[in-house]
Amino acid sequence: MTKFVNIAIVGLGQVGIYLYNELKSKSKAIENKTGKKIRIIAISAKNKNKKRRFQIDKKIFYSNPLNIFKKNKIDILFECVGLSNGISKKIVETALINKINVITPNKALIAKNGDYLANLAEKNKVNLEFEASVAGGIPILRTIKEGLATNKIYKVYGILNGTTNYILTEMEKTGETFDKVLKKAQLFGYAEPGNPKLDLNGFDAFAKIRILSALSFNTKISKKKCIMEGIENIKLEDIKIAAQLGLRVKLLGISEIINGQLFETVHPCLVSKNTYIGNVNGVMNAVITEGKPVGESVFQGEGAGPGPTSSSLLSDLLSILRGNTKYPFGISSNKRISIKPFNNDKYTNSLYLRFDVKDKQGVLSLITNRLAKYKISVKRIIQTPDKKNKKATIVIITHKTTEINAKNCLSIFKKNKNILKFPTLIRLYN
Amino acid sequence: MTKFVNIAIVGLGQVGIYLYNELKSKSKAIENKTGKKIRIIAISAKNKNKKRRFQIDKKIFYSNPLNIFKKNKIDILFECVGLSNGISKKIVETALINKINVITPNKALIAKNGDYLANLAEKNKVNLEFEASVAGGIPILRTIKEGLATNKIYKVYGILNGTTNYILTEMEKTGETFDKVLKKAQLFGYAEPGNPKLDLNGFDAFAKIRILSALSFNTKISKKKCIMEGIENIKLEDIKIAAQLGLRVKLLGISEIINGQLFETVHPCLVSKNTYIGNVNGVMNAVITEGKPVGESVFQGEGAGPGPTSSSLLSDLLSILRGNTKYPFGISSNKRISIKPFNNDKYTNSLYLRFDVKDKQGVLSLITNRLAKYKISVKRIIQTPDKKNKKATIVIITHKTTEINAKNCLSIFKKNKNILKFPTLIRLYN
Repeated sequence: MTKFVNIAIVGLGQVGIYLYNELKSKSKAIENKTGKKIRIIAISAKNKNKKRRFQIDKKIFYSNPLNIFKKNKIDILFECVGLSNGISKKIVETALINKINVITPNKALIAKNGDYLANLAEKNKVNLEFEASVAGGIPILRTIKEGLATNKIYKVYGILNGTTNYILTEMEKTGETFDKVLKKAQLFGYAEPGNPKLDLNGFDAFAKIRILSALSFNTKISKKKCIMEGIENIKLEDIKIAAQLGLRVKLLGISEIINGQLFETVHPCLVSKNTYIGNVNGVMNAVITEGKPVGESVFQGEGAGPGPTSSSLLSDLLSILRGNTKYPFGISSNKRISIKPFNNDKYTNSLYLRFDVKDKQGVLSLITNRLAKYKISVKRIIQTPDKKNKKATIVIITHKTTEINAKNCLSIFKKNKNILKFPTLIRLYN
Repeated sequence: MTKFVNIAIVGLGQVGIYLYNELKSKSKAIENKTGKKIRIIAISAKNKNKKRRFQIDKKIFYSNPLNIFKKNKIDILFECVGLSNGISKKIVETALINKINVITPNKALIAKNGDYLANLAEKNKVNLEFEASVAGGIPILRTIKEGLATNKIYKVYGILNGTTNYILTEMEKTGETFDKVLKKAQLFGYAEPGNPKLDLNGFDAFAKIRILSALSFNTKISKKKCIMEGIENIKLEDIKIAAQLGLRVKLLGISEIINGQLFETVHPCLVSKNTYIGNVNGVMNAVITEGKPVGESVFQGEGAGPGPTSSSLLSDLLSILRGNTKYPFGISSNKRISIKPFNNDKYTNSLYLRFDVKDKQGVLSLITNRLAKYKISVKRIIQTPDKKNKKATIVIITHKTTEINAKNCLSIFKKNKNILKFPTLIRLYN
């Protein structure tokens, strides 16, 4: 790479425009650290005249990002569009084939096409960096690839979605309902104003877990259908009951090697208020790795927003400017293996079960008999009557049982007239 | 660097010998990640025949480490002796001058001679890496140098000494005295069996703070005398009273840019039990950075022991094997600046003051008058009589005041006959 480095940014949404401004204002500092002078020579977005937070140079603007490649010699391209396929994939593909280094915060793209794109980058001897795709402000991917490189990591998990963590924290703190807090999150820019579904249903966290697994275990990105649950069904009531029990609801992403098999999941968990993970609040993200010989390592930082994301994008930039080509996933693609997936049915947890029932004799024994039939033993029962409405809430904390057992046991309650709703199930985190 | 890389290890104590074994057992994994074949061709320690945890190859053993340079072509040398000067400095110096890359976990050496040695490494175009010198299992130096490289960090602090954190945690948990818990720490290998002084008096944490400052703020390593206090004077009584107040004692290292001036300190702090830092327990270390635009980032991991230390030593090795020369402190030595030190006298905190007094009328008013004279306002007073011994304990939590003010105010109590001991002072963390 020569002293002058040509940069293109495709996508000028919240992240792209913040990055544009950061590159402008930090070019001198970057030169001090790397000896390279960066120049933004092309930017692209759908709408040239949209109102943006920072002024852009319209002379270098392209409405069609693919035209950038025709007219310029680009060294490094930032993909900030954010789709898992379509134009995002096309841009990255074209760049790599043209021997242009690519930096992207796009977790959906990497979780879906990461293996293919990494292979393409290696073939063309350029870098594909995606530090910002997981846990914005925490340089966790670099830490796994480099800082913890020689450890045998066997588990990686954490709070990977700032939006849902903000919502759960705020519900507990203010006693406001899910819907009300979601509106607030949208107002503050923590949740997508249009469609926050991908945050709420666990999809976003799952893409991150897939990337973390691949890096931690040196495996191909898994494609298997896994247990993925979001927070849409968490009620204020559950959060309040959990609080009384010294517990807190957190949406955890978990990836683990169990008996040589890969298990990945995202679902709400009840964690103790006295644990580390129970105290990661608001929009914060946290990633915990367990490995040998290093033991447990915890990384916490702001998980969302253009500032933290931009911090990671720039760390990728500096890594490339220092001039060495690195494998996108830490080791060569042909050394990354596929491992057998763990059978979800055998996943084992203590459970929190909440039943809304008619306040009639025999209902509790119906439930406990059913549990006993499936050898699910009860650790704790809390029954709260609602005399006025002739209803009651029964909360049961069970000892450990498997997914399949729990599913079979609970199935009957769908059609029982004394059970007013299908029971709410939240897993307890060991 | 050719495909074969020659390695020397000097110092075969707990860390050196564990590293020796790790290198032996992980050479294949290292080759997979870097394409380099490592060979340990020289080891050195005082005593060839000492009983060690792993068997060594005596054919490559040197009693005098300086002879290694005469007989071999070394590519990378690990310095694991651990002195701040003397033979440690001599070995590293000689290696760098001979264009040999150096990796060391030696914080005392780097805190004392880091600027000089970094300069020497840069001149000779080799690497000097010291990831393991701060917070063993947490790759915090690489994170600051690379992952957070383009952020403006203005504060870095944390729990940097596992031994003292273990002692404080254990005292609170078991209600045992400092002396008793210290013996246990020595038994478990958490504290030096001979002389644990450098851990207990804050010196070890201070060396780490100096290294963290230099990396975070791009400054030369500071030499200024600062407020450095260890945990030797923390009594079980203080820990118990703190617990009642919802507080916990932690030995914090803090480095901060205040009005463009550098402030570094190590001292025990009272922190809330509900905070993150208040829940870093046992031998765990934690480092927290605050910067722009990234915000607050937290890194926690095992702070001591050969496993975590070895993890960091190997991450340094991989970084060097990947083939690029890096500035030891992230930027070129001639770009690292010296900044004015902050005046310690102006350091401001709320204080916890514990007075052991004779149970006589007028003693409390003597104390409160004295505080009032120095405009130190009282937030809370807890007086506990010990009728049998005609004594009392008075604990006062004050509002914020400066160091110099507190010092002047308390000085009088040295010679007062009703105050049985000079009061214990513990600063509250914000």
